[in-house]
This record gives sequence, structure tokens and C-alpha cells, in this order.
Amino acid sequence: MSKFNRRSDEYGGSLENRARFWLEVIEQVREAVGDQCAVTSRLCVDTLNDNPLGIRAAEEAYRFIELGDHLVDFWDLQAGGWVAAEWAGDDAVASRFAGEFSHREYIEAVRPATRKPIAAVGRFTNPDTMAEAIRSGVIDIIAAARPSIADPFLPQKIEEGRYDEIRECIGCNICASRFGQGAPIVCTQNATLGEEFRRGWHPERFTQASNAEQTVLVVGAGPAGMECAMVLGKRGLSAVHLLDEQDAIGGCIRAISAYPHLGEWGRVTTYRQVQLDKLANVEIVPNTRLDAHGVLSYGAEIVVIATGARWRADGMNGPTQSPIGGAEHDFVYTPEQVSSVSGEIDGEHVLVYDTDGYFTAVGMAEMLLAAGKRVTVLTPFANFASFMFFTGEAFRVNRELRAQGVEIVPLHVLSEITPDGLRGQNVWAPEPVEWQADAVVLVTQREPQDALYHELRAEPERLAREGIEALYRIGDCLAPRTIAENIFDGHRLAREIDTADPSNPLPYLRELPYVDVDRDRAIAATAASGS
Amino acid sequence: MSKFNRRSDEYGGSLENRARFWLEVIEQVREAVGDQCAVTSRLCVDTLNDNPLGIRAAEEAYRFIELGDHLVDFWDLQAGGWVAAEWAGDDAVASRFAGEFSHREYIEAVRPATRKPIAAVGRFTNPDTMAEAIRSGVIDIIAAARPSIADPFLPQKIEEGRYDEIRECIGCNICASRFGQGAPIVCTQNATLGEEFRRGWHPERFTQASNAEQTVLVVGAGPAGMECAMVLGKRGLSAVHLLDEQDAIGGCIRAISAYPHLGEWGRVTTYRQVQLDKLANVEIVPNTRLDAHGVLSYGAEIVVIATGARWRADGMNGPTQSPIGGAEHDFVYTPEQVSSVSGEIDGEHVLVYDTDGYFTAVGMAEMLLAAGKRVTVLTPFANFASFMFFTGEAFRVNRELRAQGVEIVPLHVLSEITPDGLRGQNVWAPEPVEWQADAVVLVTQREPQDALYHELRAEPERLAREGIEALYRIGDCLAPRTIAENIFDGHRLAREIDTADPSNPLPYLRELPYVDVDRDRAIAATAASGS
Repeated sequence: MSKFNRRSDEYGGSLENRARFWLEVIEQVREAVGDQCAVTSRLCVDTLNDNPLGIRAAEEAYRFIELGDHLVDFWDLQAGGWVAAEWAGDDAVASRFAGEFSHREYIEAVRPATRKPIAAVGRFTNPDTMAEAIRSGVIDIIAAARPSIADPFLPQKIEEGRYDEIRECIGCNICASRFGQGAPIVCTQNATLGEEFRRGWHPERFTQASNAEQTVLVVGAGPAGMECAMVLGKRGLSAVHLLDEQDAIGGCIRAISAYPHLGEWGRVTTYRQVQLDKLANVEIVPNTRLDAHGVLSYGAEIVVIATGARWRADGMNGPTQSPIGGAEHDFVYTPEQVSSVSGEIDGEHVLVYDTDGYFTAVGMAEMLLAAGKRVTVLTPFANFASFMFFTGEAFRVNRELRAQGVEIVPLHVLSEITPDGLRGQNVWAPEPVEWQADAVVLVTQREPQDALYHELRAEPERLAREGIEALYRIGDCLAPRTIAENIFDGHRLAREIDTADPSNPLPYLRELPYVDVDRDRAIAATAASGS
Repeated sequence: MSKFNRRSDEYGGSLENRARFWLEVIEQVREAVGDQCAVTSRLCVDTLNDNPLGIRAAEEAYRFIELGDHLVDFWDLQAGGWVAAEWAGDDAVASRFAGEFSHREYIEAVRPATRKPIAAVGRFTNPDTMAEAIRSGVIDIIAAARPSIADPFLPQKIEEGRYDEIRECIGCNICASRFGQGAPIVCTQNATLGEEFRRGWHPERFTQASNAEQTVLVVGAGPAGMECAMVLGKRGLSAVHLLDEQDAIGGCIRAISAYPHLGEWGRVTTYRQVQLDKLANVEIVPNTRLDAHGVLSYGAEIVVIATGARWRADGMNGPTQSPIGGAEHDFVYTPEQVSSVSGEIDGEHVLVYDTDGYFTAVGMAEMLLAAGKRVTVLTPFANFASFMFFTGEAFRVNRELRAQGVEIVPLHVLSEITPDGLRGQNVWAPEPVEWQADAVVLVTQREPQDALYHELRAEPERLAREGIEALYRIGDCLAPRTIAENIFDGHRLAREIDTADPSNPLPYLRELPYVDVDRDRAIAATAASGS
């Protein structure tokens, strides 16, 4: 790509010259490994942007593959990646923008250039899509990064025909987000990711709980509740009831997966629905809302409250640590109110105020656009959807929403809502600023729906009298956070439901056993050593 | 602070109520520890902002200290801190904004409220300031965080009267910056910080080099060169010559410490000047510029090239990976050109284009303001001086420069400079945007001044013939980066000048010895274990 290669010697200029360094490296690798090891090369065949200096699959990439075809045993091809200094996220594209094997056309364009097998990623999770990609001859080897993160046993499950047990990647890219946050990787779907050694969690193996004779009531079938009930079921608890006031499980996922472009996030629910249906000891109880009395008299020995969170209607927000004056006006909406009518609220011009920075405000803007509204987004962050720089979504979200007419006003705080106008200020300057809109959506912060938990907890004698031996809360109902964190929370409680104090996580295994994990022995050793 | 405490029970409302939780905690701590342990409490006595709901030293803090005075053995007092969701950096204020003990007036305001001793931080590095603070009765105990990071032996050096050996904190806050970056702490002044165990580096102890009979020529007396020569001197190399073409040592620090408000950064040079002057085996050779022939015939056995970097004049920059058209016009300046005339360049209105994000563009804007210019800052970042959010400087820099009339245009790329105007675009939208200015300062990126190194390296036989056994490069001349990283680089080479391959850092000690470090044995064991 002459955009970056400005050499004027034999390594710059013509394609042959620009390919020379790579060719020489691969030649030397071949010489070094001989017949002992296959040699491949990851190649971006198309940079997917409008820049005239970018690589095009049918042009330079085609000729490049021809030049190097005798050197590799197979090719590892993909499209997209870093464009100058920005990670636009197209190489590991979020499900918001594309489905499985979205780079297909670029691989097809170079297929005739090679007589070697081609491996390609494409967030493959569906065995049918994989089989079709192979049978059609476009590629020869399925590569999977994110799908393996969500389910490291993906290949084995396909081999054994256990298709309905595949824990499918939802394409949220929370995994990739952790690089930029300097934090260990996590996965929305797979709570065991990164916990294999330090907590001794195998992704597919669950030990029988030592208190398996007990019965459990899980109140709330959102991400934390579903995961907790599923893992408790796999650990053999005698009876697990998963209650929800809605007519199906899913909790907040039901509304979120109905946001524009987030349909694949529904896999959080469908995977768990299928697994829960297989567990004879778990019963889903829909359309049921219990008050404290109902929980007390339900007959369960362990009660897990997973009643979630709601967006605050008063505009309470982090940047000012205050509610927003006038939030009680009837033209001011919460995200739940907007999504319950699919954006069809009163008024033509809607201002979305976002102090959250993640997908909710984007969902609101897109839902309102789809409902024909004119949309302005106001945010104290320096960019809209700032958390999405971590997930590789922010670049396209910012560009595409602008292209669709959304006005974005960064670096401003909203402080007062009146029927005559909206008042606030630039975060760097004291002068007041005014805006006009017919309606306002407040995406500020969520609050736990923990009244039931606190009511039950206030009377320990009454719990004891009714035979309730333990009361826990998990997920957003403890503290509003990401879906991944809530699923982890439900999983963690169920994995440790038979420890001395399930409310508090066990310490990490301090000495990492690289070969096999004998968790109990390691914990005992850690305890014995006095630390 | 009623801004955050909205309780209506006995823990909210009046000051007595709001203090209750804290008082009860300290009471219980006292009961728990009895006479076995002193009890103190860190208290922010003034929030230092204009918010009418903030804490004022003379008001609520005074009464709060009276309420709790019987409970503590001494007080740990400071001012400033988090204001709502932003870390304005006033609690660990950068030297850009304040000198030693800048919270003095707030401590003085509460002094009469207590009969107990007071400890306070204040980036104390000067024994005279400390003595005055104690003698005046304002405080009783000197607390030091950043000064201890820069020199963990600060108290011992004072006790022993070794004042000129104190490695004074420069108040750059690069240490604090690492929290937000999710990276291990570093210090501009103290290269051994965080390396005590994993590299076995004691801050004050240096082993005699096994090649101590050799002679060394260090070309370039900037941060990397000064540090390298100093550590080589302490390791007993027979003769170390530190050359510079300027009339004194310091390199880039000389210009940087002349930027407005960065005077304390000059301690990088003064500390090393004093130590170098004490080392009989190190000679500083100023006013000397050597070409390759001069180096070859100098007579040294080891040559270290530390010739630094320069700002590119062509506008080459990260965001577009391209130079900027028209950068060759005579009204376009580099930072070195601007600072060489203290901002007194031609033209009334100057546009500073910043793709660097750190202190250089801030220095340019302030220097130009001081020279009476009207200043516009253009940057593709979403905020000006975006790296300074990590160092706690960005909030004040952004607010104060605006208040001084600097126009800040974030989220824009500059792509072409012509005498008729400057052209670019918003990073989120393709439409062209134009600006006018009389002069342009390009703060885009730096390039190594490595011609001398490459010329020497190209002829290994000639080096050998002249008796040069080793050639190294360090600092910006290898890769432009922070001052802390350059000092580390020079220090690292000198610490490892007698290893098998000084160009490459030794591996970390993999097993951490908590009691004593036997580095050689640990390295041998690591090597023997085959990893």
C-alpha cells in the first residue's frame, strides 16, 4: 500500500517491490522449518474504505497472492482492519453492522489467484453457514476467534451433532473492548472465559453441588437470573424455579435485542432457553410477579433476587451528580418508554441526552430515526458513543448516524428542561447554551430494582421461619452494569452456591496449576498457608 | 457535602448528621485497635472549586475536624480531588499549576480546629520548605507521595545532610497517568521505579561493571544520554565522556523547561548535572559536535548515540499517515522554531495544529499567548491535550486556555496549507472546512536524529579497526517517546552494559524473591530451566 510504503529502493514503488520484503521473509521461514511445519500468512485482501490508496481484493491483493502462492501451504485471508490511526472494527465486525462471513465477496475475488487452501474468519457460529462456505469452494478452512471465545467447544459440538448446545457469539465485541481498557478479556456469552485457571472453571463441566438437595427460587429471568438458574440446574440442585413477570425469559435482553441492528444479542436468551428446557430440575415460571409475602411462602430454601434495573426518569447522572430539573415533564422519556412504543413518541424533533456512552443512546437514536423523527444527540462526552471506541463500533456509528441526519452535540451538559427550551452548557465554558426539541429521551443512569430484596432482607427471623436458608441478589439488581458482568455474576453465584459464604467470591487460586486443576486442594492449601 | 449526600435520616441533612457515619467508623476502629496502633483519617478540607455545594476549609471542614478531634491521633489533611465525575488533578497538582505545599492556606484555615498533629502532602522536595512548614506550626508531619516515588531515599538523604543528592519530583504527573492507562507506574526522574524486584534494580546501589576497564563515549546529553553517563559513572567505567553540541547538558529539557509553567522540569537536568560533577570518571564535553569520523577517532571502546529527535517540518502525522501539503511555506513553523524565538514569530493570528496530544502544543499555545498572539488550536482529538487527562492537567488546561481567549477546534484534521487559507475536515464528516491564520505551528510527530548512528553502523569493520567494540543508541534517537521512557532507556543500557547483549534487555526475574534479590542466580536458574 503506497500510502504507508514510501521507499524508493527495491522494496518500494511497484507491487513486486512492495511485496519483496514479505516474500523474502516467507522464503526464509520455509527454509527454516523445512517439511516439519505448514506455513501460512494472514493477509488483509481489502482495506474496505474509500481511500484511493487502500488495497482492493480484485486488484493488488489478487496479484500479491499470485506472487506468493508457491510459498505458503495455505492462506489466512480477511478484510478490513486499521485505517491510518483508527481501528474501525471492520476486521472483527460487530453484529450491529454485519452477519456471518461478511467478507465473503472479498475472498471470492481472490479465490482464482490461488491453488492453495484458504482459511478465513467471519464470526462463524452456525454449522450450516460453515458447511455452505466450504461446499461452495470459497474457502477451505473455517477459522474462528470470537466464536471460540464464546464457546471453546464449538468444533467438538459440531462433530458430535450437538448443534443446539453451541453457545453462539453475539458479536457485541465486549471481548475486543478489553484490550483498550487494559483489562482481562471477558465474553457476554461465556462467563468462564479467563476463569479456567484462576477460578478452576471448566466451560462445560459442572460439579454436583454439595447442597444439591436444596430448592432454589430465582426471581427475574434476565441475563443474571437465566445464567444462575442454568448453572444451578447443571450442578444438580433438586428444584430450581426461574420466575419472571413477563411471558417469556430474557429480561432486558428482550427490549435490547429489539433495538435496530441488535437482533443477534437475542442469542443470550435463546441459548439459555434451550439449555434450561433440557434441565428436568429447572422450571421456568412466566407471567408471575411475587411480592415479599409471595417469596416467603413460595417454599424455596434458597432465594436469588435478580430483578434488574431501570433507567432513571429524573435524569440523575454522573457528570453533574444531580437530577435534571424539569425531567418530570410529559415530553421527557426513559429508554424503556421509547422502546415500548418502538420510538413512536409524540413530537417531530427529539433530543437524546446521553451520559451513558454505550449502546442504549445509539439504539434510541436509531429507533427514533426509524420512526421518522429528527434526532439530536447531546452528550458531555467528547464523542458520541464513546465506550464504542473500545468495541470497534464508534467510528461507523458516528459517521453513519451523521450521514443519516442525526445532529451530534458533544461536550455539553443538559441541566434544565422546560417547555420553552432546554438549557445547559459546554463542559469547558461557563456560558449557558439553549436547545429546542419536541421531546427528550434521558439516557443518564440506571438504578437497581432492589425493593423486594431489601424488604426480604430486613426480616431475617421471618426468612428463617419460612424455611429460607439463604437470600442473594445478583446482576443489575445489585449494581447496574454490562450484560457480560451480569451473566458472570449469576454464573459465579451458582458455581459457588455450596461454599461457606456464597455472597462473596472465593479467592483466586494463587498458584496456577498448568496441568490439571484440583480446586478444592488448592483452596485448602491457600487457607492452610494463612493467606 | 450535601451535593452527594441526599439522605433524610440521621446520616443526612445537618453537618452533625452527615459526619455521623464517619465518626461511628472511627470510633469502632479505635475500639478495635485499642492502644496498639495510632488512628488517623485523610480528609479533604477544601474542594477547591466554585460549586456552592463544595466543602470550604474555614466552614464545614473546620467544624468537622472539631467534631472528630477526640477520635484521631493525628490528621492527614489535603485539598482538592474529584469534582463530580472528573479528576481535576488538584489533589496531586502538577507543577504546571502550583509549587510546593500549594494547599497551605487551606490547612492553615483549619489549624485552630485541632489540638492534634497534622500531616499533609504538598509535593515537598526541598528540605527548607519542609522545615519552614513544620517550624511555622501549620503542619507537624511531612507526607510525601510523588517525592517518594521520585526518590524513595528522600528522608534518609535529608537526615544525612545529602541535600544535593535528592532526586526531586518534577511534578509532571506521568506517575499518576499510568492508572488511567492501565499500565504499571513509571517516574520521569526515577528509572528504577517498579523495577526493584522484576529487574533487581536498587534505586541507590550500583554494582561495579565487569567491563569497568572500558571507556565510553555518549553522544548527546539529553535525558537518555545524561542518565546513561551517570549510571555508567556510578558503575565504575574507567572513563565516560558525555558530549553535546550545546554549551550545557540537558538536550531537549533545555527548551522544554523554558515553556511557560514547566520550569520545574529543569530538575531532570540539574539533578544529573550535580551527580555527574561528583563522578571523577565522567567528563562533560560541551560545544562539541562530532561527525562519524570524529566518533571513530575519539578513542572510546563503547559508543552510545543519544542524538534525540526533532519535530517534523512536513506535517507527517499519525491520523492521516501523510505529510501536510504546503508545510514548506515560510509561515509554517516547528515547535523548535517557535521556542527558539519564545513565540515571537511573524503574524498576529497563529494556528497550532496538534496531533501529538501532550505538552508540546500546550507549550506552543501558552508561549504564543505570552508573545501577544491570537491563538487557535486545531486537533483531530476530541479534546485538546487529550493525553493530559491521564496526568490530571487536561481539565485546567482546557478551561484556562479558553478563558485566555484561545479558540479550540477539536475533531478536525488539517490537510492543506496555502497562503490563501488552511483546509481540512471534521473527522466524522467528509465536507471540507477552511480556516484563516497568519502562521501555522505543526505539532504532529517527531523523527529520530539517527543519521550518525546509521553511518557508524554501516561499517562494522571500520568500527573494529578503530577499537570500537560496541555501538548502541538510546532515547528519542531510537524512537521518540516520553522523557520518562528515554531516561529509562539510558538507565537500562548502563545497568546492563556488561551483559552478553546490552542492546536487548535482560528478561525479568520470573520468580520474585521477596526477601533479597540474587539476580545472577535467578537469571542462571531461568536460563537453566530452558525458558
